[in-house]
Amino acid sequence: MDTIIAEATRGDRVESRHAGSAVVVDAAGRVVFALGDAERPTYPRSAVKSFLALPLVESGAAARLGLGDEELALACASHTGEPAHVAAASRMLARAGRDAACLECGVHWPVDDGAARALAGTGRGPSALHNNCSGKHAGFICLACDQGQDSTGYIHPEHPIMREVTAALADVTGAPHGPDNRGIDGCSIPTYAIPLRALAHGFARFGSGVGLGAERARAAARLRAAVAAAPFMVGGTNRFDTVLMQALGPAVFSKMGAEGIMAAALPEQGLGIAVKCHDGAPRAAEVAMAALLIRFLGPENRDNMVLAGLTRHSMRNWNGMIVGEVRAAFA
Amino acid sequence: MDTIIAEATRGDRVESRHAGSAVVVDAAGRVVFALGDAERPTYPRSAVKSFLALPLVESGAAARLGLGDEELALACASHTGEPAHVAAASRMLARAGRDAACLECGVHWPVDDGAARALAGTGRGPSALHNNCSGKHAGFICLACDQGQDSTGYIHPEHPIMREVTAALADVTGAPHGPDNRGIDGCSIPTYAIPLRALAHGFARFGSGVGLGAERARAAARLRAAVAAAPFMVGGTNRFDTVLMQALGPAVFSKMGAEGIMAAALPEQGLGIAVKCHDGAPRAAEVAMAALLIRFLGPENRDNMVLAGLTRHSMRNWNGMIVGEVRAAFA
Repeated sequence: MDTIIAEATRGDRVESRHAGSAVVVDAAGRVVFALGDAERPTYPRSAVKSFLALPLVESGAAARLGLGDEELALACASHTGEPAHVAAASRMLARAGRDAACLECGVHWPVDDGAARALAGTGRGPSALHNNCSGKHAGFICLACDQGQDSTGYIHPEHPIMREVTAALADVTGAPHGPDNRGIDGCSIPTYAIPLRALAHGFARFGSGVGLGAERARAAARLRAAVAAAPFMVGGTNRFDTVLMQALGPAVFSKMGAEGIMAAALPEQGLGIAVKCHDGAPRAAEVAMAALLIRFLGPENRDNMVLAGLTRHSMRNWNGMIVGEVRAAFA
Repeated sequence: MDTIIAEATRGDRVESRHAGSAVVVDAAGRVVFALGDAERPTYPRSAVKSFLALPLVESGAAARLGLGDEELALACASHTGEPAHVAAASRMLARAGRDAACLECGVHWPVDDGAARALAGTGRGPSALHNNCSGKHAGFICLACDQGQDSTGYIHPEHPIMREVTAALADVTGAPHGPDNRGIDGCSIPTYAIPLRALAHGFARFGSGVGLGAERARAAARLRAAVAAAPFMVGGTNRFDTVLMQALGPAVFSKMGAEGIMAAALPEQGLGIAVKCHDGAPRAAEVAMAALLIRFLGPENRDNMVLAGLTRHSMRNWNGMIVGEVRAAFA
């Protein structure tokens, strides 16, 4: 519970520190490394978007609708609402013969400040396409339309589409998903509290295909390839997942979730990693994930990560002076 | 070190939790209440801006330059860069015969998203006047000009202005301020790590005048009155300090600092309160401060705080549904 995973310094002192849990699991479910409590149920939030996208691919809907790398990466994304993201979400809906009016995720300004200000500069406001989850929601709508179903109300647990994607979550993670462990996510779909270990195990399976069945394993490989080919679509400017996968390509598949969740698959090593910063801070989960990737990836990828600046965040003040850093706090 | 001061829920579960320290001290320095480690040196960051503004008032500079409630409140502020803040910072500099070119705080977009987007909509970018610390810096420049000093380099520890305001910090808090406990703040001036207890003691003195000497006590009362009269200037739209002082008036003087610091003076009770969320999260420091204010203020003020919605933050998703809350975690 109280393991410190990251700290923020200022001058020669630690100014703030972050408790958390982390676990590394292989595809057979064996725990390879653990820090803190890996069994405590935790909402994975957006970290499992790629699992939710599996039915879209394995059903053949993605292929029938002609969704490419960018659209599939966006289906797995928490994007920053930059123009390329908005355009791809719009394309997905158009392929299904639908538009932004079908999205039930709600509206918010782009996460990327520059994109928000640029949009404001046009005198227009945001639409549901700018919501960081619009690609995931567009994927649900594509799946519904391909099946000839009415997508209305797809965000509710009992809608056939939500039942189908929730079954995929339960299958990949091996954890029960039901009313007892259900909360509501920021975009209004359910999120289910599962052990961090189960989340890591899901990523080990998603990265290796082991234990998924042939069709689901192929769909997982397709989604990983899409994100590796279009890493900007899964996040955006300066986002950890985007910067990491731009640097490392298919050697890692990572995805953040709100409230300090990070999860990653290491296909070559057959491992899955999950991190929860207990206080919900992304900065801590990111440097802790980077430290674990450094430990479990090969030396070439380690160098690329250091080059990409992911292992430590320097903190600069408004005059550009370095005043401290955020760094992992375990060896 | 590991006391949980606040938690964020989702559904019927705690999703994230925040460790921290809190202490309540009277003007004589007696600890009335403590949670966690009150002796650990902590950077107070912007929480001590009102102490830094004391020389501006007690020297007579503020009166000679004709600074009113709004300008004095802005000298104590971490403001959101809304038009009223920018105008007041500009007025302060004009009173000293200076302009924004003298500010050494650096430039950032307004903290308030609406203000940032409105500024972007005009096609212009931010200036140093939009920096959340511009009022504090304008106060330093006013003090320098009133004394006939060159303000250039006022952000450096050895500049006469910085020495003068740092001496006020040391006097009010009773803690040493020197190279050994110095870091650099976001706006480039020094920040000194002091025990949380000393920060609370400083607020007890600032609120009561006890132990400050007659002139400094009068200056503290003037600054408190200015902020009570113009609480929007010390923060901005939806900021904790502004909402609290709009609801309670002079019954409390509160000020946030970066990385999860909150401090408050309760003049009628002669108490000072300081809170540090160890992970740096403002949401936790705010609800913890609200819980302590509820405990130590009279019943009428308690009702006003609850009405102002400060004791619990409901968390809504992008469709407006309440999905959880942030609340203090101690009784």
